[in-house]
Amino acid sequence: MRIRYGMVGGGEGAFIGAVHRMAARLDDAYELVCGAFSSSAEKSQRSGAALGVPPQRCYDDYASMMAREAVLPAAERMQCVVITTPNRMHLPIALAALARGFHVLSDKPATATLEECRTLAAKLRSSGLHYGLTHPYTGYPMVREARARIAGGELGKVRKVLVEYTQGWLATPLELQGNKQAAWRVDPAQAGASCCMGDIGVHAFNLAEFVAGVAVRELCAELSSVVPGRRLDDDGTVLLRFGNGATGVLIASQICIGDENNLRLRIYGDKASIDWQQMEPNSLWFKPLEGPAQLLRTGVSGTGAEAAAATRVPAGHPEGYIEAFGNIYREFAQLLTRDKAEAADGAVPGISAALRGMAFVETAVGSSAAGTQWRELPHLG
Amino acid sequence: MRIRYGMVGGGEGAFIGAVHRMAARLDDAYELVCGAFSSSAEKSQRSGAALGVPPQRCYDDYASMMAREAVLPAAERMQCVVITTPNRMHLPIALAALARGFHVLSDKPATATLEECRTLAAKLRSSGLHYGLTHPYTGYPMVREARARIAGGELGKVRKVLVEYTQGWLATPLELQGNKQAAWRVDPAQAGASCCMGDIGVHAFNLAEFVAGVAVRELCAELSSVVPGRRLDDDGTVLLRFGNGATGVLIASQICIGDENNLRLRIYGDKASIDWQQMEPNSLWFKPLEGPAQLLRTGVSGTGAEAAAATRVPAGHPEGYIEAFGNIYREFAQLLTRDKAEAADGAVPGISAALRGMAFVETAVGSSAAGTQWRELPHLG
Amino acid sequence: MRIRYGMVGGGEGAFIGAVHRMAARLDDAYELVCGAFSSSAEKSQRSGAALGVPPQRCYDDYASMMAREAVLPAAERMQCVVITTPNRMHLPIALAALARGFHVLSDKPATATLEECRTLAAKLRSSGLHYGLTHPYTGYPMVREARARIAGGELGKVRKVLVEYTQGWLATPLELQGNKQAAWRVDPAQAGASCCMGDIGVHAFNLAEFVAGVAVRELCAELSSVVPGRRLDDDGTVLLRFGNGATGVLIASQICIGDENNLRLRIYGDKASIDWQQMEPNSLWFKPLEGPAQLLRTGVSGTGAEAAAATRVPAGHPEGYIEAFGNIYREFAQLLTRDKAEAADGAVPGISAALRGMAFVETAVGSSAAGTQWRELPHLG
Amino acid sequence: MRIRYGMVGGGEGAFIGAVHRMAARLDDAYELVCGAFSSSAEKSQRSGAALGVPPQRCYDDYASMMAREAVLPAAERMQCVVITTPNRMHLPIALAALARGFHVLSDKPATATLEECRTLAAKLRSSGLHYGLTHPYTGYPMVREARARIAGGELGKVRKVLVEYTQGWLATPLELQGNKQAAWRVDPAQAGASCCMGDIGVHAFNLAEFVAGVAVRELCAELSSVVPGRRLDDDGTVLLRFGNGATGVLIASQICIGDENNLRLRIYGDKASIDWQQMEPNSLWFKPLEGPAQLLRTGVSGTGAEAAAATRVPAGHPEGYIEAFGNIYREFAQLLTRDKAEAADGAVPGISAALRGMAFVETAVGSSAAGTQWRELPHLG
Repeated sequence: MRIRYGMVGGGEGAFIGAVHRMAARLDDAYELVCGAFSSSAEKSQRSGAALGVPPQRCYDDYASMMAREAVLPAAERMQCVVITTPNRMHLPIALAALARGFHVLSDKPATATLEECRTLAAKLRSSGLHYGLTHPYTGYPMVREARARIAGGELGKVRKVLVEYTQGWLATPLELQGNKQAAWRVDPAQAGASCCMGDIGVHAFNLAEFVAGVAVRELCAELSSVVPGRRLDDDGTVLLRFGNGATGVLIASQICIGDENNLRLRIYGDKASIDWQQMEPNSLWFKPLEGPAQLLRTGVSGTGAEAAAATRVPAGHPEGYIEAFGNIYREFAQLLTRDKAEAADGAVPGISAALRGMAFVETAVGSSAAGTQWRELPHLG
Repeated sequence: MRIRYGMVGGGEGAFIGAVHRMAARLDDAYELVCGAFSSSAEKSQRSGAALGVPPQRCYDDYASMMAREAVLPAAERMQCVVITTPNRMHLPIALAALARGFHVLSDKPATATLEECRTLAAKLRSSGLHYGLTHPYTGYPMVREARARIAGGELGKVRKVLVEYTQGWLATPLELQGNKQAAWRVDPAQAGASCCMGDIGVHAFNLAEFVAGVAVRELCAELSSVVPGRRLDDDGTVLLRFGNGATGVLIASQICIGDENNLRLRIYGDKASIDWQQMEPNSLWFKPLEGPAQLLRTGVSGTGAEAAAATRVPAGHPEGYIEAFGNIYREFAQLLTRDKAEAADGAVPGISAALRGMAFVETAVGSSAAGTQWRELPHLG
Repeated sequence: MRIRYGMVGGGEGAFIGAVHRMAARLDDAYELVCGAFSSSAEKSQRSGAALGVPPQRCYDDYASMMAREAVLPAAERMQCVVITTPNRMHLPIALAALARGFHVLSDKPATATLEECRTLAAKLRSSGLHYGLTHPYTGYPMVREARARIAGGELGKVRKVLVEYTQGWLATPLELQGNKQAAWRVDPAQAGASCCMGDIGVHAFNLAEFVAGVAVRELCAELSSVVPGRRLDDDGTVLLRFGNGATGVLIASQICIGDENNLRLRIYGDKASIDWQQMEPNSLWFKPLEGPAQLLRTGVSGTGAEAAAATRVPAGHPEGYIEAFGNIYREFAQLLTRDKAEAADGAVPGISAALRGMAFVETAVGSSAAGTQWRELPHLG
Repeated sequence: MRIRYGMVGGGEGAFIGAVHRMAARLDDAYELVCGAFSSSAEKSQRSGAALGVPPQRCYDDYASMMAREAVLPAAERMQCVVITTPNRMHLPIALAALARGFHVLSDKPATATLEECRTLAAKLRSSGLHYGLTHPYTGYPMVREARARIAGGELGKVRKVLVEYTQGWLATPLELQGNKQAAWRVDPAQAGASCCMGDIGVHAFNLAEFVAGVAVRELCAELSSVVPGRRLDDDGTVLLRFGNGATGVLIASQICIGDENNLRLRIYGDKASIDWQQMEPNSLWFKPLEGPAQLLRTGVSGTGAEAAAATRVPAGHPEGYIEAFGNIYREFAQLLTRDKAEAADGAVPGISAALRGMAFVETAVGSSAAGTQWRELPHLG
């Protein structure tokens, strides 16, 4: 039985909505049954039609969608809402979904502020429903391999974490040239307190904690608005101190001309290190204290069960971003089809990852504003 | 409207069947409605059930499938057969499909012999139906870019083509250890006259002609059975002479320990050269006579319309094998939904590619058997 | 006429002394005529004998060397002293050399403290002699290319500088296991106030300013002693602010298991970026705002005069560390053979680079000790 | 005591002569005492002066050099002749040197024909002198590592050898545009029977046998003259059959636009494989049948004694072409300073390698001329 889902956002011209749908299709575990695909009712209809959604289930807005789906017969109505809108809309949509009994799978960042995320967490707790956050980079087989090796002690004590996520697409003032993707990201009213950290820094942060298996305790940030006139950060560096005594550096930037989507994670322990790059995701360097470096590869002998479970094709057939994204979708579907609700914070990033991500963004913004001061991440219990 | 397809082969434990299905799902342009998934009726049922195919449309064999689907109402019955069986079955299944009016999308090689392929071509011609051959490597954006650049004259006259496809998975006698994938490939009764050339050499040959835009006129081959006891080739080199005077080398091997799926194509003109590797498919080197080498990348400015049409996500989000395969599926669907039948030999490899591929395999086998003699490829008019 | 030089340090078992000598030989512009190769007189004799230095010119200590060489006939005595000892000895040796009228070519860091370096600068100024500092990474052809392109405006305004230098060789307490190279570096009495920043951070800092053509104005550092019991830093990150408004990050670490000598420099302007890695030194990425990335290569068309002047062999024949080092030696020889003394701060790093390097180390140590505070680099006029 | 050598060729504007001299200087084991640097007496004088050679030892031609050096006092006269002229001169110079009692270190190919090489071998045998052939690629540490591992059985039985050496510098008719390097290489009167195979194919052949430890028994070649009007080959492919039953492919080309000096060697055994590329010479892939690929690196733990002996600087400091060349020089010096004459065919390629190289070139030319026929390599006893 496929999970019936509705989508908010992701209409014509949207990039990430199409990715969500391809990811959902890959294992045939989902069925798109409705949507409020755009803030324009007409565009929502047109987008839905192109996707084969019946006209009566292409809604004018998310509120109508929640209300009208809720009264459909149980076997017909959607079970899960996928949120792919600008950040500011994430909370109201998620709350409306939870209020009507729909599970939520949301693009990142979880909300526009940490406070909003706490509200979401409280509602979620009382709802008994599932919440997933699409940090797709955690779905790559070699990311799973790295995580498993560190959890298994192969790196020894984690000492140093270097994570970087650099892009060049905001190196010019695209927001003034009609680029909608850029426009909302640099607008505090739509994006929240941060552009760069909220858009990609939070991915880097999530990935670092996901793989390293240790939590950031405090940080110290310098954020910049490099392109003249921009109100939010488009570049920044964050020094990290982890709970176990390790240190780290997180570099995120959107003004790095020539960098496509350079997400790279290096973790050094006292026994070995790992090095992974998103743009060649099927390779993972494992470097022991003694002996030659080893190149672990998706599907090749020498990798473990976690990687294998996230692998779709034999070695040498590159798996990409959509497959990684699809793994998050598949695992979220597995969560939903289990008998009882449980936290989505195993492989699929859930509300804990959401809270930590928002805490990261806000603390980084605060640290930078205070002149690169060390700040503890707030308690998220 | 999605295209309704049935699948022959691709049941439990099959690798390539699952890839076909993921490729078919990616753009939501297909619907799997029936299948004869295994030579075992029981396994076919079980495989179909796992895929959500109704029991009554999980057939015991391909003949029943053709017969019974043909009598279903037009709006319900399958429109297209996907063939993912060992080579020897390709022809009878394809002929049965054509006889009942179903389009055919077949895994490669097209048939077990060139003679069979000529038979297929003749039947196809009179049928008015479509035939596609899944050479998925032609679906990568950067392969399209290379092809477009050569067609546009950016390399000048093509002078030299180096294509290699090396793997290591048959470096040991897996066929004696219960590996079914290996067993049928090294068995002349199931695979035809060649293992290595029929399995991967034919991909390399197809890719070389697809991109270079010039046709091989004659060849000279040395094939080997490296693993003791093997009856078919598991390794070989083929010298190529193209119609335009260019020369080339095709190296294919399945005993190259440590190589995963190393398909690489280099083409040298008198103005520039290109270099592409399947295992890093989103990169394409373009090297002009003067000035620095350029690294063309999927989704990055500097690539053209052909690549863009085959691209799904923004730059830096790796596209992989399934996406390339999906592009073939999408383009085959576009062929099928056009008003009138036309040859599938544009972007989707069709019967011409099928004939040339089989001619390549047979000529290479013959040349090698004759002591590495130069042989012209037969006329395929 | 070859320049006659004497060496202090660099005896048996020393690594960097041998590199200096190979660099000096490469262009036949130097002749080793004397030395105080070790703090042990016997070892100095033995080392000199192995190098073909006459016994009477293998001195027991640097003071004797200066005194006795000074009284040799002008055509015979050394003209230049090469210093390859632990840091603490750099100043006294350099001063002794200058006092006797010998030019100085010193390994880095220039001295143990900034104060010492100021003393050196003052003496040098009044001496009319030449001083060179071996930051060999500035000698690579592609580093020269990057510098020339930035100076020529090809990157536009420099916005961001990322420089990292990570190694793994001090990941374990080698200093407790008889490794002399490690022992003096982690000993404040021999190395000065810093291990990691003084040993490799200073190279990264020098390279960044050398190539970017903009000066660091203030910095903010966190240094760590990762290996238990170590008194000096073996790891650190330094946030940088440049005079032109650009920001940067400098990461240096000696506990990064599996990293060999990973010095990498990325500079982003508002028109283009560059990316260079010491371990593949003959490649330089140049990435313009529009169009594909270009791979500039030593000796290949597309590179300019500065790179060509530092290139020894045709394209495709890798030039390495010794050649880069040799370029510094060659250029220092060119300085010495010119008619009148002039500052060595063109291509060869000289006293200005020395002062800036020591200012960097001390300011970083101070900033870290003060809790990661922003500190201006002292005025070095 | 340094070895006194004289050089024939290598004057102003020559590329390889300068490389020989840098290689000779690196370990201070040689001293250039005389030369006949050019076929023009005036240019020979000028070249020698620039190199610090006394005018009376800058000879007008090689014959004078041999005659006049031979009558100098033993402690003064040259001991060894280095030959860096076009191929056709190699034999007469070498014979003249041997006749006067001088050792010979010659650039490749050894002679212009196999017959000449046999003559040389016969004279050498009776002379008791040493002969070395500069195949510098055999001097790289990672080439030594590969060779040692294969000799030690780590690859098991060698099954397949792929070696390629592609360049682009002769892709246009440079010989008609005043390029002297090109002019003599494409002229049968100066180069012999082959351009591409004699210039670079022979390096590839030598490297393959040096590392694989098995000898080619027969070959089958197709050579081409791609650039119109050229009389000698500028491109070719050679199929190889080794004595132990392995097969191989050797691709050499000088018309591969964009390729710098792409010498790559892959060897596949039944237990593991290796992969080495000259343009990143400090890396060697070792890929076992099971488990991840290992990246062996110059100076890093995991490599053996043979590599270590050829390594000059610590890990991560790239060693390049000049260092590899210098290793050949150093080892030849070691041969010369031993008590008794012995064959130079250990690490330094000697007369056996010379004979095999010439046999390779001639057999390839013959095979191609005969229509790509299999030919045995002649008996070289």
